[in-house]
Amino acid sequence: MTSQKVAAVILLSGGLDSYTSAAIARSLGFDLYALTVRYGQTHFQEIRAARAVANALGVAKHMELEIDLRPIALSALTGAVSVPKDRVVDPADIPATYVPARNTVFLALALAWAESLGARDIFIGVNALDYSGYPDCRPEYIRAFERLAKLATKAGAEGHEFHVHAPLAELTKAEIIRRGVSLGLDYGLTLSCYDPDPDGRPCEHCDACLLRAKGFAEAGVTDPLLGVTG
Amino acid sequence: MTSQKVAAVILLSGGLDSYTSAAIARSLGFDLYALTVRYGQTHFQEIRAARAVANALGVAKHMELEIDLRPIALSALTGAVSVPKDRVVDPADIPATYVPARNTVFLALALAWAESLGARDIFIGVNALDYSGYPDCRPEYIRAFERLAKLATKAGAEGHEFHVHAPLAELTKAEIIRRGVSLGLDYGLTLSCYDPDPDGRPCEHCDACLLRAKGFAEAGVTDPLLGVTG
Repeated sequence: MTSQKVAAVILLSGGLDSYTSAAIARSLGFDLYALTVRYGQTHFQEIRAARAVANALGVAKHMELEIDLRPIALSALTGAVSVPKDRVVDPADIPATYVPARNTVFLALALAWAESLGARDIFIGVNALDYSGYPDCRPEYIRAFERLAKLATKAGAEGHEFHVHAPLAELTKAEIIRRGVSLGLDYGLTLSCYDPDPDGRPCEHCDACLLRAKGFAEAGVTDPLLGVTG
Repeated sequence: MTSQKVAAVILLSGGLDSYTSAAIARSLGFDLYALTVRYGQTHFQEIRAARAVANALGVAKHMELEIDLRPIALSALTGAVSVPKDRVVDPADIPATYVPARNTVFLALALAWAESLGARDIFIGVNALDYSGYPDCRPEYIRAFERLAKLATKAGAEGHEFHVHAPLAELTKAEIIRRGVSLGLDYGLTLSCYDPDPDGRPCEHCDACLLRAKGFAEAGVTDPLLGVTG
């Protein structure tokens, strides 16, 4: 018995959020078309993690696109300044790791691919709780992009709607991790750190490492990347 | 006497519309930061024209970004199908030269650069009259992008607004050409054709050539590229 699955475009970094978001899409019955953008991240271990995650998910296709945002998008993640360490994360304060318009660039590319595939669904692993204060992770931003997508496209002009799914939007990091564990995910494949060492080991001091550690601790789950019990 | 000009990001292809749009920005007193995207166009004469136009405009900076949209954005302009010739252009019908989400990708990149520069103004040469039926050229699309830009960015979260100027939106091609001529522009530097020969000569049969010829004829101006009197 075969069934024709519906395609969805999945934005996939190498982090645990996008992995979980993609796994949720898979659990809903979508065929996964994973899009990873190499945008001049200061580390390439993220790309390696994205490949491992795509493989583990059994995606229909993993597309890697290259666009060097470094000349136009100044950020700690594109090497313009240092990644902040050991700071108290305050979502009211947008940190130096914010990359100008990054999610808008990513969603625009996902939209192009979705329309070319005839897909109407895009998944992005943003979350608005236990996050780092990025404006382009908020639900109102996601809704604004959906409205734009309808006006931007031939598919929209023909009456179709694009749905940008952000299944983690309202979850804490601990809830995301519990959800992923229930879906059988191996978070040992992922990399959250903004500033890993050359061997891909997390720094344990940047915002992403601190939020990840807090999430695993609150979930009562061992982070397979560190072997630390929460 | 020196004056500190305000920066604006200008999307610049090699066509007459973006040249005119940029010249209008300059006439308003903006310092021009021109962005040309090499996205896998089937011809590179467009890039050459963009460089000539940027030079003629005296831009503060001309940024060329490379992102190959061919694997994700199927279109006659990315080589997926042939460029239609000698058709009757009907704006109600979106043609094969539509590139999925192209202007959304371009505006997202312009937004990233604008935010990094501290600029709040972006110019795009879209027009909704005498055009080819592209959905992402309509004023309602531009307004939707402005709303998105405010939600997407750190600058927006801090209370700033981005203004996406589309000064040609409501002009006919003939009005655009008359405006450009009044600004002293040399349209001999531009290339509108979707399918030029290897030497960069326009085909004179694609939608872009037909709209350009009609515009010059109605404006009563000789197209310096063809030497034809309107």
